[in-house]
Amino acid sequence: MKRQLLLVAVVLTAGIMIGLQLGPRLDWTVAGQPSPTKKWQKGKGWGWVWGKDDEVGALNEMTDASRLAALRLADRGKVYDLGVLYDRTSYKWPGHSPGEILSFRTPEGVKRQRDLPELVDHDGRKTAWHSSALFINDNVATQIDGLGHATEGDDNHWYNGFAEKDWGGNWGFRKADAAKIPPIVARGVLIDVAGSKGLDALPGNYHITVADLEQALQKQNVQLKPGDVVLIRTGTLRYWGETGSDHAKIAAHDSAGISLETAKWLVEQQGAMMICGDTSGLEYQPKPEDAAAFRAKYRSFMPLHNYLLIEQGIHIGEFHYLEDLARERVYEFSYIACVNKIKGAASGFALRPIAIR
Amino acid sequence: MKRQLLLVAVVLTAGIMIGLQLGPRLDWTVAGQPSPTKKWQKGKGWGWVWGKDDEVGALNEMTDASRLAALRLADRGKVYDLGVLYDRTSYKWPGHSPGEILSFRTPEGVKRQRDLPELVDHDGRKTAWHSSALFINDNVATQIDGLGHATEGDDNHWYNGFAEKDWGGNWGFRKADAAKIPPIVARGVLIDVAGSKGLDALPGNYHITVADLEQALQKQNVQLKPGDVVLIRTGTLRYWGETGSDHAKIAAHDSAGISLETAKWLVEQQGAMMICGDTSGLEYQPKPEDAAAFRAKYRSFMPLHNYLLIEQGIHIGEFHYLEDLARERVYEFSYIACVNKIKGAASGFALRPIAIR
Amino acid sequence: MKRQLLLVAVVLTAGIMIGLQLGPRLDWTVAGQPSPTKKWQKGKGWGWVWGKDDEVGALNEMTDASRLAALRLADRGKVYDLGVLYDRTSYKWPGHSPGEILSFRTPEGVKRQRDLPELVDHDGRKTAWHSSALFINDNVATQIDGLGHATEGDDNHWYNGFAEKDWGGNWGFRKADAAKIPPIVARGVLIDVAGSKGLDALPGNYHITVADLEQALQKQNVQLKPGDVVLIRTGTLRYWGETGSDHAKIAAHDSAGISLETAKWLVEQQGAMMICGDTSGLEYQPKPEDAAAFRAKYRSFMPLHNYLLIEQGIHIGEFHYLEDLARERVYEFSYIACVNKIKGAASGFALRPIAIR
Amino acid sequence: MKRQLLLVAVVLTAGIMIGLQLGPRLDWTVAGQPSPTKKWQKGKGWGWVWGKDDEVGALNEMTDASRLAALRLADRGKVYDLGVLYDRTSYKWPGHSPGEILSFRTPEGVKRQRDLPELVDHDGRKTAWHSSALFINDNVATQIDGLGHATEGDDNHWYNGFAEKDWGGNWGFRKADAAKIPPIVARGVLIDVAGSKGLDALPGNYHITVADLEQALQKQNVQLKPGDVVLIRTGTLRYWGETGSDHAKIAAHDSAGISLETAKWLVEQQGAMMICGDTSGLEYQPKPEDAAAFRAKYRSFMPLHNYLLIEQGIHIGEFHYLEDLARERVYEFSYIACVNKIKGAASGFALRPIAIR
Repeated sequence: MKRQLLLVAVVLTAGIMIGLQLGPRLDWTVAGQPSPTKKWQKGKGWGWVWGKDDEVGALNEMTDASRLAALRLADRGKVYDLGVLYDRTSYKWPGHSPGEILSFRTPEGVKRQRDLPELVDHDGRKTAWHSSALFINDNVATQIDGLGHATEGDDNHWYNGFAEKDWGGNWGFRKADAAKIPPIVARGVLIDVAGSKGLDALPGNYHITVADLEQALQKQNVQLKPGDVVLIRTGTLRYWGETGSDHAKIAAHDSAGISLETAKWLVEQQGAMMICGDTSGLEYQPKPEDAAAFRAKYRSFMPLHNYLLIEQGIHIGEFHYLEDLARERVYEFSYIACVNKIKGAASGFALRPIAIR
Repeated sequence: MKRQLLLVAVVLTAGIMIGLQLGPRLDWTVAGQPSPTKKWQKGKGWGWVWGKDDEVGALNEMTDASRLAALRLADRGKVYDLGVLYDRTSYKWPGHSPGEILSFRTPEGVKRQRDLPELVDHDGRKTAWHSSALFINDNVATQIDGLGHATEGDDNHWYNGFAEKDWGGNWGFRKADAAKIPPIVARGVLIDVAGSKGLDALPGNYHITVADLEQALQKQNVQLKPGDVVLIRTGTLRYWGETGSDHAKIAAHDSAGISLETAKWLVEQQGAMMICGDTSGLEYQPKPEDAAAFRAKYRSFMPLHNYLLIEQGIHIGEFHYLEDLARERVYEFSYIACVNKIKGAASGFALRPIAIR
Repeated sequence: MKRQLLLVAVVLTAGIMIGLQLGPRLDWTVAGQPSPTKKWQKGKGWGWVWGKDDEVGALNEMTDASRLAALRLADRGKVYDLGVLYDRTSYKWPGHSPGEILSFRTPEGVKRQRDLPELVDHDGRKTAWHSSALFINDNVATQIDGLGHATEGDDNHWYNGFAEKDWGGNWGFRKADAAKIPPIVARGVLIDVAGSKGLDALPGNYHITVADLEQALQKQNVQLKPGDVVLIRTGTLRYWGETGSDHAKIAAHDSAGISLETAKWLVEQQGAMMICGDTSGLEYQPKPEDAAAFRAKYRSFMPLHNYLLIEQGIHIGEFHYLEDLARERVYEFSYIACVNKIKGAASGFALRPIAIR
Repeated sequence: MKRQLLLVAVVLTAGIMIGLQLGPRLDWTVAGQPSPTKKWQKGKGWGWVWGKDDEVGALNEMTDASRLAALRLADRGKVYDLGVLYDRTSYKWPGHSPGEILSFRTPEGVKRQRDLPELVDHDGRKTAWHSSALFINDNVATQIDGLGHATEGDDNHWYNGFAEKDWGGNWGFRKADAAKIPPIVARGVLIDVAGSKGLDALPGNYHITVADLEQALQKQNVQLKPGDVVLIRTGTLRYWGETGSDHAKIAAHDSAGISLETAKWLVEQQGAMMICGDTSGLEYQPKPEDAAAFRAKYRSFMPLHNYLLIEQGIHIGEFHYLEDLARERVYEFSYIACVNKIKGAASGFALRPIAIR
């Protein structure tokens, strides 16, 4: 009888363990399929595979199962804010328009301006309000580039062949704008390249190779899976400070990034569904003296953008703040990002993606 | 032996069941505490209880445990997008500034303007880009009001006593702006008032009572818990269409909402940590002929805002799209919202909160 | 000797009279030429006659002599302000973007914001400043349309054949923008059509004919001359009030205007170098029920703009305030207008042209 | 008889000469009054002398007679454009907001966007249009500071005692804004300080003294009169180029200017009704190492602005382009400037004042 009780106890414990495993880790890859993805092909990635009207690209891979599996990666409930704070002083690529946050209504102004006396004059509590008007570019602070951000060709087409003559407009473009980016809930994997090299931040114009990624992944003991959101850390944002106002410090590192070859490996060999970085463009930028050769070789001043956005339909995350994750060595997590819902915007901007472990 | 195998099987199954229960439903209320909240008091709610420097209010209640419990409410991975799409035509309160999304750079413009010839002239792929510049108000489309949005008193103070003379500014105000709203991950509960009454949408100027909420909750068979994000449906957003351009249709329902008394019940009796609606202001608006009496009674033209934002430190969600949740009768879910990270903004705007079941 | 003294006195007086005549009225038409203009041809007007690079059009007619003669029309020094005051409430054509004047810096804000402490903190006089930031359309309030404002054809060309594919851009267009409009100093002639009919203002959709103009000119006892700036009064701006906020009242008259035929008479028979009105578009607008026939007949929804701006190279003045001139029956004067100097603007806006008698 | 004819000829000629003199030079000072001004007092200038509601200041001195006299200074009809061209690249004081001129509607955009099909779809001439939207500061390019631009005191008052608590607002301030500046028609006198010293441009931080002005006036053989608009040339704008994009070159000279003492001499001894310069602030700016002493001495970081705008009610012209006048040695002329008519703007901006000789 004691043995039976022991047996019960042991088996019960085993069952509980199995249940716990099955429960929170209801991994969507568990069914033993060679690949859980719908359209991804190893060696090829995605491309214009989602039908001629598609405006979503590789994010079409997300399913209820994949999202649930990603959510289950959070087993503590700790949230990491991956957004950086924006204001008028924030560093940005100089080709984007400047911005101002302007006090539109202030309590003193409301009361002095006297344009809405019916609200203000007889208010016993002397109620008023603040609101701001913003002039802002859609490529500032923490961003996710929409699939129409980059164009190429004489016809100025973007992802899926949408061309300017058909889908341009005055109030932003009209196909595959950032408002079409669905809520992103996916497994996120941080690859801390700076950390794996023992550096605060990679030097400017540093070219991140496949070997760099492999080395960091190995140190981290994490493996990529198809469908991942991959986040690559250069360390640049440790210099963001409160609002990114020290442009020189940020610029000194902002040109580090992955090259086209590295991006291809991530997409075609590993199945990265989205790639994010902590710089303004994710992409390696050559030194001025190397720029001409670089552009001649790749036939583009931003070949990573051509490849990811236009060819592959893969969204790019920029200026994602990865410092807290790196410090706490959180390499695998639930990544959640929801782009502001503004028709015609090229990119989601001033975002606050989160990682949850 | 057969009996032993049977026993093993039964006990193993039982163990798995227990494990599954323990796993995904690691409810933070499980420990039998009378209330999981840190500062909430039944009959009183919150208030200025978080210290004199606090800019976060009731959302301070969130903990790793509460977030994890909220995430565990998602057992399918289905995401509901609670944001409405914004553009220049979108309905908004007329006291806010108008908006434009302007094509800042277009591929044709980049090539014609010739301001960056080093990028464009020798690009073999004829690469260019789209970006937009926005002039936009911070109280448009799907919003979360920051705790400094509403002010009162001769000193024009807001939540926690921050006063304009100290914390005003030119680029928005400088305490408890929307950028201070942390990522919100909490149990969300939809109260479908319109649905419980069998209406497409509540009529304009409809005053939602406590009884209305209780009736709907009963029909839905859901109970509120302290720390919930409560979402109240009037049905107004079924008329949003693509971008909210039919102002008359929206305005016909937008004045329905909860009254001060109903809000107090939600906060002080039920512990609602945040209250969201599907109108521009959440708050019941009287008919013009009733406005004077209303303002005399409540000593404010927006007493709900005075109460929730200023007195209680409770954020208000506005223009949350609840139609899909209502149609599918999803009343309890993981609510996740991350406000854009813009210093000095009064409210998060053009947001895309999500519900996950 | 007395006779000689008398003779001296008489001749001296005559000489003084002649001198006075020659002096202030050094009329540029005095030389008896059939036409003082450089390129104008009766029956034809101007057109693309100024060389393939020209961006100025008919205003090229101005010379030192013509300006001096125009200035000499002012014999009292009384100035009439022809501009209307603009603010966020001002009536405009609904196809233009809305506007806001935003307090950018205020003395309280400067002192609270503390972004420039080196200026403010040790200032014995407690000096600060006001400045505003504007979001504004370039077709508001008192305007002068640049020659690139209207386009036509599959190639979207404007005056002188400048085409979008060549001269478009992202920051406005790059040929014949409003910044190219030279300072205008010319004889101005008011034709008070509303006054000549004894009306406060012409009714909406009123079609001003050549006969209307001839009748008014006859009553006014004024004759047009080649090179004139002709200003045509409908009376619409008597309803502008302070800032043009009563849109219904203004709209009730704003569609009155001259037709293509009337414009042709002014240009081809009379040599009008510029035509101004007191409405938003100068041009007669048909009633909705007549719009289809109108557009079929003229092959354009704004044939006056096609004719004046594109074909003739003649600038259009809009929303010129003519009420004071009409009240005081000032029909001939020195017209002076200087367009704001902003590269890429389609039109001069919020202007303050003046008439001096 | 011959002698009589000769006499007639001589006397007639003399008469004509006299008539010519009397005619175009109908000087308003001719009546032999010690001063033509209404309120100016030698040794004191103006001040708050125009009544407690006045928003115009010293420009109240203008009369029909003074304007006519000023116009009569133009005896050739040659116009000098005193405005500099503004665009996104233009140099400005860094404390002002940046600007963008944005293509709001373009012919391609209008046709692609398809938001107004009733206009575009059936247009036989394929008519469309350009318009721009601007985000712009009211202190850019060629400016005239309104009397409310500078404030001082704990009550933040400006000219005539208007104080922020009474006359502030959200959409600019509400007393003595730039829209209140009347059309300016006055005698203009250029004082070419750089030219008188044989310099292309004064060095940065150069302090223009009274002796500098007297020396230049003597070389120019011109005398100031009460009621003049005085324009002082440092030569800075010879470096403006097309749009003021070479900030370093402009900044190298932009800090030269007149001091408080020099301004007092101009106003109190000479009766200058308005003072203009060719720099961003007219005012001498000390070197960084001298700034503390300067501010201690004058109790303000911009004492000239305190004095002219607040104390004296004298408008300041900035970034007036004086190069053409200097090159042609035109020192006395008719100065005409009309400020854009925008309610709440602190200053007229992107203006095109003119000089006519």
